[in-house]
Amino acid sequence: MSDLFDLIVIGGGPGGYVAALRASQLGLNVAIVESTHFGGVCLNWGCIPTKTLLRSAEIFHNLQNLKEFGLAADNPTFDLEKIVARSRGVADRMRKGVAHLLKKAKVTTFDGRAKLAGRSGEAHKVEVTKEGQVVATIRAPHVILATGARARQLPGLETDGKLVWSAKEAMVPDSFPKKLLVIGSGAIGIEFASFYRDLGSEVTIAEVADRILIAEDPEISAQAQKAFEKRGIKILTSAKVGALKKDSNSVSTTIETPKGKTALTVDRIICAVGIVGNVEDLGLESTKVKIDRTHIVTDEFCRTDEPGLYAIGDVAGAPWLAHKASHEAVICVEKILGRTPEPLHALSIPGCTYSRPQIASVGMSEEKAKAAGKTVKVGRFPFLANGKAVAMGEPDGMTKVVFDATTGELLGAHMIGAEVTEMIQGYVIARAGELTEAELMETVFPHPTISETMHESVLAAFEGALHI
Amino acid sequence: MSDLFDLIVIGGGPGGYVAALRASQLGLNVAIVESTHFGGVCLNWGCIPTKTLLRSAEIFHNLQNLKEFGLAADNPTFDLEKIVARSRGVADRMRKGVAHLLKKAKVTTFDGRAKLAGRSGEAHKVEVTKEGQVVATIRAPHVILATGARARQLPGLETDGKLVWSAKEAMVPDSFPKKLLVIGSGAIGIEFASFYRDLGSEVTIAEVADRILIAEDPEISAQAQKAFEKRGIKILTSAKVGALKKDSNSVSTTIETPKGKTALTVDRIICAVGIVGNVEDLGLESTKVKIDRTHIVTDEFCRTDEPGLYAIGDVAGAPWLAHKASHEAVICVEKILGRTPEPLHALSIPGCTYSRPQIASVGMSEEKAKAAGKTVKVGRFPFLANGKAVAMGEPDGMTKVVFDATTGELLGAHMIGAEVTEMIQGYVIARAGELTEAELMETVFPHPTISETMHESVLAAFEGALHI
Repeated sequence: MSDLFDLIVIGGGPGGYVAALRASQLGLNVAIVESTHFGGVCLNWGCIPTKTLLRSAEIFHNLQNLKEFGLAADNPTFDLEKIVARSRGVADRMRKGVAHLLKKAKVTTFDGRAKLAGRSGEAHKVEVTKEGQVVATIRAPHVILATGARARQLPGLETDGKLVWSAKEAMVPDSFPKKLLVIGSGAIGIEFASFYRDLGSEVTIAEVADRILIAEDPEISAQAQKAFEKRGIKILTSAKVGALKKDSNSVSTTIETPKGKTALTVDRIICAVGIVGNVEDLGLESTKVKIDRTHIVTDEFCRTDEPGLYAIGDVAGAPWLAHKASHEAVICVEKILGRTPEPLHALSIPGCTYSRPQIASVGMSEEKAKAAGKTVKVGRFPFLANGKAVAMGEPDGMTKVVFDATTGELLGAHMIGAEVTEMIQGYVIARAGELTEAELMETVFPHPTISETMHESVLAAFEGALHI
Repeated sequence: MSDLFDLIVIGGGPGGYVAALRASQLGLNVAIVESTHFGGVCLNWGCIPTKTLLRSAEIFHNLQNLKEFGLAADNPTFDLEKIVARSRGVADRMRKGVAHLLKKAKVTTFDGRAKLAGRSGEAHKVEVTKEGQVVATIRAPHVILATGARARQLPGLETDGKLVWSAKEAMVPDSFPKKLLVIGSGAIGIEFASFYRDLGSEVTIAEVADRILIAEDPEISAQAQKAFEKRGIKILTSAKVGALKKDSNSVSTTIETPKGKTALTVDRIICAVGIVGNVEDLGLESTKVKIDRTHIVTDEFCRTDEPGLYAIGDVAGAPWLAHKASHEAVICVEKILGRTPEPLHALSIPGCTYSRPQIASVGMSEEKAKAAGKTVKVGRFPFLANGKAVAMGEPDGMTKVVFDATTGELLGAHMIGAEVTEMIQGYVIARAGELTEAELMETVFPHPTISETMHESVLAAFEGALHI
């Protein structure tokens, strides 16, 4: 085997492995270097296993509400070990799937850590080390950095794997936390709060900002907070978590909010306060690559300032989403091949939170659109007025759309409630096709579906909804 | 109150009441005549109550499979009366909602049967009768016929309300049918088969065509048949149901297929073999309105051959879908008001079947596209290769797309599996915005969602899917 490839991909997460697959599909000779497991955090310790956990929690929740549906069963119980085992099984299965895809695509895989080691003519050199030993040195004119990110550590609130969990430990708990404090209310914090609450934990969320789910439209944040509080989750916003006092099997702290101080003793803490890019030990010092805080600076086609070096996914900055990474992978590879891909439009990348209720959005919130100087038309439609949502026993939810009043552009769409994570793509497609309100009003949404709220909210923004 | 209105709507189903609401929104003085209940069959005896029944069945199904999800409960049972009561409750609630909307919109409602009674100057006269008495005579220059449709009766297989049920009796069963024969495998037949099977009935489906769900792409029909058979439903295609021999509480018959004869004794039969339009007793004889078999002939703006007379929804012909009716309502009213609505594109009307698995589609099947002389590119993606579907425990399903190879037009999309009824709108939006494959490939679908199969299937049709 030659040590010279057309492309080397460093990192086997959703950005990295998709880059390798796409490049191979387009005829390149590709190597990929991964030190831990293909699929990255997303597949092994993120998206996929959490959705598996949440599915068990959803069904367990339904078990508590059988009467509403004319059903009954005795002694509903859960087995945390089995729930976790199923989650690990699904992650394993998907990881093996990725390994199989790479093999089928004839991508050469290297097990180890990769580091740039200067140039050899036109090619970049990459050293692969395993347990401190250099196991391979390979070359390619193009190298894609897809090294991902890791949980941010806050001073005094560092995760310790025992009492203070990161998402990873929260996913494979050593015991069931009867009392739980979740620090941070982004998608990760909210999903674990939702999961453990459904299984019966007493859950408190502490968020430093003045509302939860800060990336979402404020109205959605407010409705989410109401829904979570209805489920018995305690939410503290504008909250500062004080020093931790750790016992053998519990932690105590004091949380300060403008309303006063709350002393709290919990079994476990989950700390989910953002992530930082994995930019270290990549040999970037001897390149022209620029780093801004913890991410690599790139242009719209994922190019760094060093010719032949590219960065995609979490290490290239927000939004930290697997689908952003895999889409950048495709753009980057196509650009390398001299194609003319469309750059990624940040406002057309949807975001999803898989709590109960689900939350999904794309584009600008009403607040941000106004701050950007837009004149907006806003429409809302509540699930309560939607037949399918009521039939499903899921009447709590809302679809909200924000249009540019001048151009009819769909600036943003914001949804909360059952199934919205599967529905939001309709609005993303609308943005991709640059549909205006007129075309969305003429679209025939199937009845009876919750997706009809997507139509009604557009009508509400312009000529008036029909069913409210 | 004057007897002269701007518009009279005959029939209060989803076509009729939406026409009345939209016309009122646009400033018209509207009367609506309904003899039974607002919301029509759809809301009272169709879409809404069946989805409510199916939701109970879905949860009961999950109750049988708790172990897979790390959960347990003893003695799962259902109470058919309570399941039905919930279904009736939801239908009642939605019907009251429609009545409230009409009241809020200041639509004048008449309780009775309406019949055209000639003209008075420019206006059409409409007589409203209740229990044989004329209770009102009203006039309007525009009259919309939205009288809906009813179940087709086959000679020898007529529904009798006791042993041979229509959808209506199937929705409010007098007893639980342990053995059930469903005649017809359209959406209605399939949904009831799915519902009763989930509750434990021994179900046989007899379909006269050579495959079930004849409106769907043949590949989807085949996959649906496999899924239903896996659930223990017996399916007989190219089947002729013989004479019925009715006992006091059971029916016997013989079903003939090319493979031979099957003798069958069941507790109940559900006959769902299509519908016929309600064109009788409307006073159409003295108008220029044309009737084709059992539906009123209209142009693309719902106009009949008689000036000022319009027909929308089921009475105006296939597809017999509530969302087709309500969309025609809007088009018809806007045209009356001199606006320039876009006509309805038959190929952009989605269809959904809410069985387990769900089925949803829009546009042409591969078969029909080829028959229409199109050169097609077809892409498929199985749910088995989708992380979210596997995480949900729903790995059986497929998304299939059919493109025009020459123009890149999305000719059709066909889905089977979990949540597809809420997803299909994305493809409908794509058709409304005339997106080609290039734009769909550039669309960022959120991860992890089953909707990613909508992206992968497009990739599969052109440059190759990534995850298979």
